[in-house]
Amino acid sequence: MTGGGVEIERLIELMAKLPGLGPRSARRAALALVKKRERLLAPLARAMAEVAERVRTCRTCGNLATGEDCAICLDPKRDAALICVVEDVAGLWALERAAVFRGRYHVLGGVLSALDGVTPESLRIPELAERARAPEVIEVILAVGATIDGQTTAHVIADYLEGCGVELTALAKGVPVGGELDYLDDGTISAALAARKAL
Amino acid sequence: MTGGGVEIERLIELMAKLPGLGPRSARRAALALVKKRERLLAPLARAMAEVAERVRTCRTCGNLATGEDCAICLDPKRDAALICVVEDVAGLWALERAAVFRGRYHVLGGVLSALDGVTPESLRIPELAERARAPEVIEVILAVGATIDGQTTAHVIADYLEGCGVELTALAKGVPVGGELDYLDDGTISAALAARKAL
Repeated sequence: MTGGGVEIERLIELMAKLPGLGPRSARRAALALVKKRERLLAPLARAMAEVAERVRTCRTCGNLATGEDCAICLDPKRDAALICVVEDVAGLWALERAAVFRGRYHVLGGVLSALDGVTPESLRIPELAERARAPEVIEVILAVGATIDGQTTAHVIADYLEGCGVELTALAKGVPVGGELDYLDDGTISAALAARKAL
Repeated sequence: MTGGGVEIERLIELMAKLPGLGPRSARRAALALVKKRERLLAPLARAMAEVAERVRTCRTCGNLATGEDCAICLDPKRDAALICVVEDVAGLWALERAAVFRGRYHVLGGVLSALDGVTPESLRIPELAERARAPEVIEVILAVGATIDGQTTAHVIADYLEGCGVELTALAKGVPVGGELDYLDDGTISAALAARKAL
């Protein structure tokens, strides 16, 4: 009972379901919204309604899109010879922020997990194999996480792509740029050592 | 450039303005919203639109309300003899969660700050003095923060209420329940010592 009506309590309840917000921060956020009604609350309500209505999934790569295809798949300047496989849209965004990859993407929408019933089909791996068979595709780059599930997924993708006639590569594992050895986990250190290069 | 259209970028930009969310967590939250379109995004858009449209400020106490008066001011079971002065709605909610106060509130909407141009008028302190003059009001309890600005505000309120014929009290300062001395700041320890009580 806050005395502010069910509307505000419903708002808090829904805000608390966002990742990174708990009950307390959801309350703070809701109050901030009410305070900034014109500058934040109303525009945010409109932005959410627009996203709910207009944003969908690219039929080719699985990225977010406002039409049937996403802006990256539609961009003729993006190299169709390279397909970078990411777990999710967050990974795609991370690569786009780095602004070093000029090919196209394939968004899996997760990683394989027998426990959670995630199958190759639900990750659109057969569709990836289909895309990889196109004559213009030369290389498929796996940019999935260096987790156990991520690496399992990478192996399954390698099986699916056998015979597609593409080169299959993966992001290098090693010491993060700016990283100090003292703060790195053993797995990263041993991977970096195994992949050591001549200077 | 995320390839997902301006709608999603606008959503991220607005989400990042919420307290507790930075650019990264705003992106995560936006992606979670798109993923849970039916269960979270659409309901949240509706909840925000409803709050934007319906929630306003109680004309008497300054709490959030859906009509002219808030549910607490309208509740005949709340003791009209007690007015608890809080800085903001978050403070009111904190007291309501504790469920120990059965009187009414006066929400200042901030604390006095010469630097930010916050005057007694903008904090509705004259209105508080007006309310305190009503014959049924016996006690005004100051529940403002134990900060310098909060204490300045308390002193100014005391000046305004002089001659209103009400008892003016303030929340006790001391050791928080469950608090260990070792982790307390000097100000709290000296306040708790000065306010020590016979057992």
